[in-house]
Amino acid sequence: MTTDPLVVFTPSGKRGRFPRGTPVLTAARQLGVDLDSVCGGRGICSKCQITPSYGEFSKHGLTSAQGALSEWNAVEARYDEKRGLKPGRRLGCQAQIQSDVVIDVPAESQVHRQVVRKAASARTIIMDPATRLYYIEVDEPDMHEPTGDLERVSRALRQQWEIAEISTDLPTLAKLQPILRKGGWKITVALHKNDKDAKPHLIAAWPGLHEAGLYGLAIDLGSTTIAAHLTDLDTGLVIASAGVMNPQIRFGEDLMSRVSYAMMNPGGDKEMTRAVREAIDTLATDIATEARIDLSLILEMVFVCNPVMHHLLLGIDPVELGQAPFALATSNALNLTARDLELKALEPAAPVYLLPCIAGHVGADAAAVALSEEPGKSEDLVLVVDVGTNAEILLGNKTRVLACSSPTGPAFEGAQISSGQRAAPGAIEAIRIDPETKEPRFRIIGSDLWSDEDGFDAAAAANGITGICGSGIIEAVAELRLAGLMDPSGLLGSADQTGTARMIPEGRTHAYVIHDGTKDGGPLITVTQGDIRAIQLAKSALYAGARLLMDEMQVDKVDRVVLAGAFGAHISAKHAIVLGMIPDVPVEKVTSAGNAAGTGARIALCNLAARAEIERTVRQITKVETAIEPRFQEHFVAANAIPHKTDPFPELAKVATLPNVSFNAKSDGGGGGRRRRRA
Amino acid sequence: MTTDPLVVFTPSGKRGRFPRGTPVLTAARQLGVDLDSVCGGRGICSKCQITPSYGEFSKHGLTSAQGALSEWNAVEARYDEKRGLKPGRRLGCQAQIQSDVVIDVPAESQVHRQVVRKAASARTIIMDPATRLYYIEVDEPDMHEPTGDLERVSRALRQQWEIAEISTDLPTLAKLQPILRKGGWKITVALHKNDKDAKPHLIAAWPGLHEAGLYGLAIDLGSTTIAAHLTDLDTGLVIASAGVMNPQIRFGEDLMSRVSYAMMNPGGDKEMTRAVREAIDTLATDIATEARIDLSLILEMVFVCNPVMHHLLLGIDPVELGQAPFALATSNALNLTARDLELKALEPAAPVYLLPCIAGHVGADAAAVALSEEPGKSEDLVLVVDVGTNAEILLGNKTRVLACSSPTGPAFEGAQISSGQRAAPGAIEAIRIDPETKEPRFRIIGSDLWSDEDGFDAAAAANGITGICGSGIIEAVAELRLAGLMDPSGLLGSADQTGTARMIPEGRTHAYVIHDGTKDGGPLITVTQGDIRAIQLAKSALYAGARLLMDEMQVDKVDRVVLAGAFGAHISAKHAIVLGMIPDVPVEKVTSAGNAAGTGARIALCNLAARAEIERTVRQITKVETAIEPRFQEHFVAANAIPHKTDPFPELAKVATLPNVSFNAKSDGGGGGRRRRRA
Repeated sequence: MTTDPLVVFTPSGKRGRFPRGTPVLTAARQLGVDLDSVCGGRGICSKCQITPSYGEFSKHGLTSAQGALSEWNAVEARYDEKRGLKPGRRLGCQAQIQSDVVIDVPAESQVHRQVVRKAASARTIIMDPATRLYYIEVDEPDMHEPTGDLERVSRALRQQWEIAEISTDLPTLAKLQPILRKGGWKITVALHKNDKDAKPHLIAAWPGLHEAGLYGLAIDLGSTTIAAHLTDLDTGLVIASAGVMNPQIRFGEDLMSRVSYAMMNPGGDKEMTRAVREAIDTLATDIATEARIDLSLILEMVFVCNPVMHHLLLGIDPVELGQAPFALATSNALNLTARDLELKALEPAAPVYLLPCIAGHVGADAAAVALSEEPGKSEDLVLVVDVGTNAEILLGNKTRVLACSSPTGPAFEGAQISSGQRAAPGAIEAIRIDPETKEPRFRIIGSDLWSDEDGFDAAAAANGITGICGSGIIEAVAELRLAGLMDPSGLLGSADQTGTARMIPEGRTHAYVIHDGTKDGGPLITVTQGDIRAIQLAKSALYAGARLLMDEMQVDKVDRVVLAGAFGAHISAKHAIVLGMIPDVPVEKVTSAGNAAGTGARIALCNLAARAEIERTVRQITKVETAIEPRFQEHFVAANAIPHKTDPFPELAKVATLPNVSFNAKSDGGGGGRRRRRA
Repeated sequence: MTTDPLVVFTPSGKRGRFPRGTPVLTAARQLGVDLDSVCGGRGICSKCQITPSYGEFSKHGLTSAQGALSEWNAVEARYDEKRGLKPGRRLGCQAQIQSDVVIDVPAESQVHRQVVRKAASARTIIMDPATRLYYIEVDEPDMHEPTGDLERVSRALRQQWEIAEISTDLPTLAKLQPILRKGGWKITVALHKNDKDAKPHLIAAWPGLHEAGLYGLAIDLGSTTIAAHLTDLDTGLVIASAGVMNPQIRFGEDLMSRVSYAMMNPGGDKEMTRAVREAIDTLATDIATEARIDLSLILEMVFVCNPVMHHLLLGIDPVELGQAPFALATSNALNLTARDLELKALEPAAPVYLLPCIAGHVGADAAAVALSEEPGKSEDLVLVVDVGTNAEILLGNKTRVLACSSPTGPAFEGAQISSGQRAAPGAIEAIRIDPETKEPRFRIIGSDLWSDEDGFDAAAAANGITGICGSGIIEAVAELRLAGLMDPSGLLGSADQTGTARMIPEGRTHAYVIHDGTKDGGPLITVTQGDIRAIQLAKSALYAGARLLMDEMQVDKVDRVVLAGAFGAHISAKHAIVLGMIPDVPVEKVTSAGNAAGTGARIALCNLAARAEIERTVRQITKVETAIEPRFQEHFVAANAIPHKTDPFPELAKVATLPNVSFNAKSDGGGGGRRRRRA
């Protein structure tokens, strides 16, 4: 009696004995090894590549894999000739087991592969997309046994993939017949599941084996900016990112002014809905063009947004969100389609997932931050602040998570600031004021040089020095305090009081001149008393929200702070603490999560289980409503001052670089981002 | 120890003992008695009316119901004052059990009430609609426990109706918030289920108790005519019927010419799809106007149609249906919405159900006929023929059912006939030719008088005598044969041969003059040799289809014939047999089912279980494809002759009325229809 060969798969360690001649893919499937295949073992998709590593388990130990698998066959030879196989690689559906063997499944052949991210602290994404491809060979129609083409597609999926039952929609059904005939009854279908137990929904089909991939959009729909990350649903990598201004700005700068617009203007909500949907169409078209992919390959979208954006995207009048008790039409996660949102650029059947909202003021964007930063899994008490026109604030640890939102307004984004501007080349993004000379030095976006370094003028010439962006104004206000130019109440001193001519009169108050470009026809860039008041209001709102959650948690301090938001990535931790935006913590306990809401959207896009997880998580989050809480007002008033008059972290002056990492650039496929020198 | 009172419900016979003070509705629910309620026992919907009939089961027998229920209460008094309660009626939610009692649930208080139909032979419809109303009282939003309005509606349904989970869609969700506030958190919702185990889908809501009812459209979408029956989803009664020409006629008279149009003209299928959808919008608007109901109350639609109409309605190019192997895109029943069909007049969320197709040539209309006529439940062998531009033919009994379709063309509908016209006032619908004198007498639609009866001329003056409709031409051709004016091959004799001046030359052949209206400026109404050829082709196709099924069934004769189709209701059985349209059977074995396809649509509209039943049934039907079957051609050629030269049923000349019953008029609420005198 002979014993069947033993097969061990790495890295899973799964093992079993199989008769000689069993294809590796078959063995992997029977053992539940995570080995991909779109064509179902027909030797055409090449997703099931494996590497035999050792052969022959015997008392002599492991020998080489030579001979443990069947000979290289014609299918593999043809594939290698056409597309190339890496040395040592075999196609799992072709190579047959001959004797004991250890078979390695490389990362790219695993269905549930991890997305590589550079940021070590960041959450790992495991690929588990809601939409998957299946290659099938469909029976031709037979007049004597008449069945519909869809029913025969369904039968093929049942027989070839053990998928019991599917559903579909009219737009997809209407395309199916010509695709089946063009593919000679061999087609690839995309099946989407809302959750792991849902009946798969046929959302697209292509003739033959579809090799052009599938893509998804993770969209962070903010009040001011709409940012989209085009993600390869096979690898999880971001292949392009793009952003546009939210065109609803013309109806009102902040959320409440948009709700007012809807209240005051009949049909105003519909106008705003149309505007944002058109912007998403444009954004999708632009990003597909940039990435050189066909728009029809974008077959999934995940949206995160605050409640007002959420309702306006859905076509729901946000009026209830403008008044107590701030009732959402629905707080549940939503599974929709591009057609539901009347998106014209995208396939009507393309699924759209909206993360759940937490409360009337705490939206799906906060849920996305919770998904990305997982405060509920933290051992220590973490405060997560997503800075934007509206700040989403989470506080929690393993025992409990609290959430609120706070209306910070657009000052942190450089709006409503006299010399303010969006973060763009030429904008001052960092500033230092010498406490002795009261002279400033600064850095602009587009150059790593400080203004007192050699070569700065040449570097600045490209875009000029145009204004101050959000991170710049935060540093400027904090530095004015540290330099003794401003009292704790935020009042700027006069030139006489401060002894520097950089303090100039501005009406009945004063302003500090950072840069005078007027002699070259450029702007006079100052920080006015009004700018300081705007920043004080914004930072007080942020701080009051955090304090409210700390009260609710009955704590006086937090262990660490995560700054999130497209703009949060660029805030200097030290200056945020000096300013009193966030509670005092050791500066090394402040980290940046980059665009955490966007990251949450990407996680939900790539991983079906994460959707179930966040839907469960939000139900456990304690919602705190700032608008009706008298203590919020108390904290807000108390937080107006800027108490630190000396640098709380003098040692940082010696450090050149802070470990700030943003996570929205395509350069590293989803991790990393641009690192910036800080002083 | 006292014993709880015994309650017996009639007609169900369900019984149980309940504590004194138990409301009758509560007792009924616990026993599973079919007692309706929309408001859930709040005394406002009045759906739960009952009649106490006897009280006190004792050794003395039953006594009066006096005292067996609690006293008439204020809620009942108010309801009686406002709306009126029939004598003896109580509200089941108010009346409480005091002692033994027999309680009758009148038909109109039963959920699953039967629809009254006059036609005794016709199938009974039990009300079991897919869409039902529920009155709920919803919790107000609470800032401290934030949940969405939809989630609180869902909770109310769970708590007040034990409905575990619902889904909804964006258009309905967008309307929910104002409705909740307008109703003071008391609303009525309409929940729809695709099948009995499906998660209910919220499709509409109204403030307070909704009392304006719910309506559905049963639509028979034919190649030539679109007929709709507006049905009250509470009572099942048809409250209005209307029909329009199918505007696709301008793209081709019959199915194959429309398929050709789609093949020859890029985008032609889309044109036809738009045309038919617009016609449905118009039809829905007209019928709602006629019935004086709001269009938004039409919350369900059921369509039956042949496969080409089916695909064009769905927006699927029908090109595959024009060539072997006649592959349907899908044959399954479909659950869609008005929005899916881009119907503008109707609520976007209104559910649409399409019956399954049987095969590429045998559509959802044939399935509807099978649902209505139930050949598979027949003890004897029944042939069901749905006559139209395309005939649907079913043959079967309890052991087996076969189906095919046959391209009869529009001749039976009066099209392609020289003096032909649609059935409308003024059209000759019945004709007799005296075998001795060769003189005709006839009847026109709009009058019960024969043309040789007193008062006919006056009656005819209203509309004139305008042409011959489908049933008229069938009788005319059959009578020409019985009068010896035509030979078995269908050739008309000359005036010389036949001895009557009514035979006039018509090119190289002859025509028979039925009516010469030219002296009054009216038309000359004749039957030409060409007309006879057109009818021969049509009847041969019909007969050949029936014969093909009989071959397949291995029988030479059938036990009975059911003539269906809007026009089938008006065909004289005798003349159909003389003509050889249908196999020879005793004339009393030919019955009319009226518009059986339309009836099938109504059954599916009113009864959810019937949908499951027909979906199961069509899978068991043996499909026979006429287009590829050589025997069809043989039967077709052989059926060309008109063999009967003498009246096979001379005794019928004495009978004034034949039991032909149509089932599409509103006069009797769905049963009956106009009866017509036949000779």
